[in-house]
Amino acid sequence: MAYLNENYLKLQAGYLFPEIARRVREFCEKNPEGAKRLIRCGIGDVTEPLPQAAIEAMKRAAEELGHRETFRGYGPEQGYEFLRSTIAQQDYRDRKIDIADDEIFVSDGSKCDCGFILDILGDQNKVAITDPVYPVYVDTNVMAGHTGPVRKDGSYEGIVYLPCTAENNFVPEPPNEHVDLIYLCFPNNPTGAVATRDQLALWVDYARRHDAFILFDAAYEAYISDSGIPHSIFEIDGARECAVELRSFSKIGGFTGVRCGFTVMPRTLLAHTESGKELPLHPLWNRRWSTKSNSVSYPVQRAAEALYSPEGRKQCRALIDHYMGNAKVLRDACAKIDMKAFGGVNAPYLWVKTPDCLTSWQMFDRMLHELNVVITPGSGFGAQGEGYFRISAFNSRENAEEVARRLQRLA
Amino acid sequence: MAYLNENYLKLQAGYLFPEIARRVREFCEKNPEGAKRLIRCGIGDVTEPLPQAAIEAMKRAAEELGHRETFRGYGPEQGYEFLRSTIAQQDYRDRKIDIADDEIFVSDGSKCDCGFILDILGDQNKVAITDPVYPVYVDTNVMAGHTGPVRKDGSYEGIVYLPCTAENNFVPEPPNEHVDLIYLCFPNNPTGAVATRDQLALWVDYARRHDAFILFDAAYEAYISDSGIPHSIFEIDGARECAVELRSFSKIGGFTGVRCGFTVMPRTLLAHTESGKELPLHPLWNRRWSTKSNSVSYPVQRAAEALYSPEGRKQCRALIDHYMGNAKVLRDACAKIDMKAFGGVNAPYLWVKTPDCLTSWQMFDRMLHELNVVITPGSGFGAQGEGYFRISAFNSRENAEEVARRLQRLA
Repeated sequence: MAYLNENYLKLQAGYLFPEIARRVREFCEKNPEGAKRLIRCGIGDVTEPLPQAAIEAMKRAAEELGHRETFRGYGPEQGYEFLRSTIAQQDYRDRKIDIADDEIFVSDGSKCDCGFILDILGDQNKVAITDPVYPVYVDTNVMAGHTGPVRKDGSYEGIVYLPCTAENNFVPEPPNEHVDLIYLCFPNNPTGAVATRDQLALWVDYARRHDAFILFDAAYEAYISDSGIPHSIFEIDGARECAVELRSFSKIGGFTGVRCGFTVMPRTLLAHTESGKELPLHPLWNRRWSTKSNSVSYPVQRAAEALYSPEGRKQCRALIDHYMGNAKVLRDACAKIDMKAFGGVNAPYLWVKTPDCLTSWQMFDRMLHELNVVITPGSGFGAQGEGYFRISAFNSRENAEEVARRLQRLA
Repeated sequence: MAYLNENYLKLQAGYLFPEIARRVREFCEKNPEGAKRLIRCGIGDVTEPLPQAAIEAMKRAAEELGHRETFRGYGPEQGYEFLRSTIAQQDYRDRKIDIADDEIFVSDGSKCDCGFILDILGDQNKVAITDPVYPVYVDTNVMAGHTGPVRKDGSYEGIVYLPCTAENNFVPEPPNEHVDLIYLCFPNNPTGAVATRDQLALWVDYARRHDAFILFDAAYEAYISDSGIPHSIFEIDGARECAVELRSFSKIGGFTGVRCGFTVMPRTLLAHTESGKELPLHPLWNRRWSTKSNSVSYPVQRAAEALYSPEGRKQCRALIDHYMGNAKVLRDACAKIDMKAFGGVNAPYLWVKTPDCLTSWQMFDRMLHELNVVITPGSGFGAQGEGYFRISAFNSRENAEEVARRLQRLA
């Protein structure tokens, strides 16, 4: 009976998605008919088949492992060179962004990475997090002991919350106070908002003036349709000195169950010790991976590489177009009944104001019981999410159209 | 420029295996002829093809992902039920060990898990680690701030080291002092030693008297050939109240590049808060996985499941028999030249006394330059490893026999 990490006891009872799953399960048990009609637009999980290029690559790689001459055991802890160089070339250098192969660290998803990054950072950092937000940013900081106790509205003492509201188009400005570590996600989950080049430049400028570190989550960059919107924080001058970027193949290539993503850790990014000594974070991150991981399954890395082949790119494009087609169907449906919906243009999420002053969970229950549609209650993403809900466009076209039809009943 | 985790700065320059890789690379660049003859018995990495059952399962699963009806996105964060129940049944309940399905947590390898487990434990725990030892146990504790600075011999202040020497057959007794967290690994990496039922019972007894927590690494259990030796800590009465067990498919099924393992976290295992409140660790571990992971790639989980099929079991058995055949070849070769070798009977590692009072790294260089054979210097595993080296039996029979021949030159 050792000591436990008491920070875990500060966490609210349920992580958002398990709580949704619990309510849905309960509903289905009590309403077998409703259960049959159920359409899930809650958790942001893809529904369409994996790109054929990825499947073929994975099968080929599995086959390779069956022959002594092509068998591979432990791979490099940071990911195979074939994948790191493909990513650095196609996602960055081909777009005139200066990123070296060894600044790419392959991982089993950006959910994992956004927790792992705290391994190499000090506990003294003052943390700023947007509100609403992907709950993992907050919860991993709670677990690491970077917060005080939870407040009644679900927020934690010690975190600087950056309100994202309709007034600021869900893109907050840098705070007036000093913070050390800032979580930004654009295109945003859950609001679907995007940040312009000027808005990101303000953040990079803030970070450089305050010696702050930006954790930029670009998991949804492939969903950007407006040509002026940056896909990467590294499109902004000076970002190599203050930012890390997280990317994922989950939503681009339907990899939510295949598990692969990566972090871009520039060699030029410094951090400091308590006594003020400045050191690059790259060697620490490299050491973290060397010691705590043996990287991602070889067939999975081959599957990820295949997404960059000409066929792979085409197949990913088709997936994204499909989901964004759903987003348009859902936006139009909301517009028809005068339901105020944001996002859904450069992101696969719609962020919708609840009608009739319902709370987010009231709306969740109403959607579940009356329309048999699962959405995500906005308040699950933070206090500022209260009064909103998120609809995910990850679905079949048929389901998206059916949800659009059912929504009309709320008129 | 945020604060960095200064504990990383306490780590010694090179993690053992990267340092070996560096020296081998340097040797190969300077000795192209020697490079051609090089045989690697250093890092404990498998060499033989993946079991056919696993390949077929992985390919089938990849194919499933290509069809809408059988596509799967996010899986349960703790692993799929099909794998958890197969493990609990075949590895435990079929052997009369009481482990429930939901006490199995699937992971991408036990290297990862032995670091992750610290997430849910307090920083106050007094840690005991065997010496020599798998370096990851030590390094993850250094990174988490559980130690003082490094000493000249590579050990860290604040850790209680448990010397494993020829005198105690490389199985230490519990210490006289109090510790909270104990790392045990049997069959042992690097020494190849196994613990008897009585020896493990002593440890469980110690843990229960001291309210301590045993992290039992059983990654090599499948290599046990003596029928009396326990394969699991849970064969010992009372272990469900004080132990967690790590298992891996890396060495059983050749999964070092496929990445899959699991942790057994009994619901009956408690830990305490600073104020003495006792709570089960299972919910914390469950929460850790829910928040920080989306589990392991679906095709990988199917491949792991296939290792438990009748064909899979047969194919794994053949792999293990092959490597243990190598171990015998190497043991016999050492005996012939009166080189004192331990292990290699219930484990795929031989732990060999260096001849001529050479240090471990001197022996490493001699083996590399004179025999063109890569071994692992014992001192890389801890101060008590000085004067030993580890030979891995993971190789082709041809290579093992060639190493055996070359060893005779040391006579």
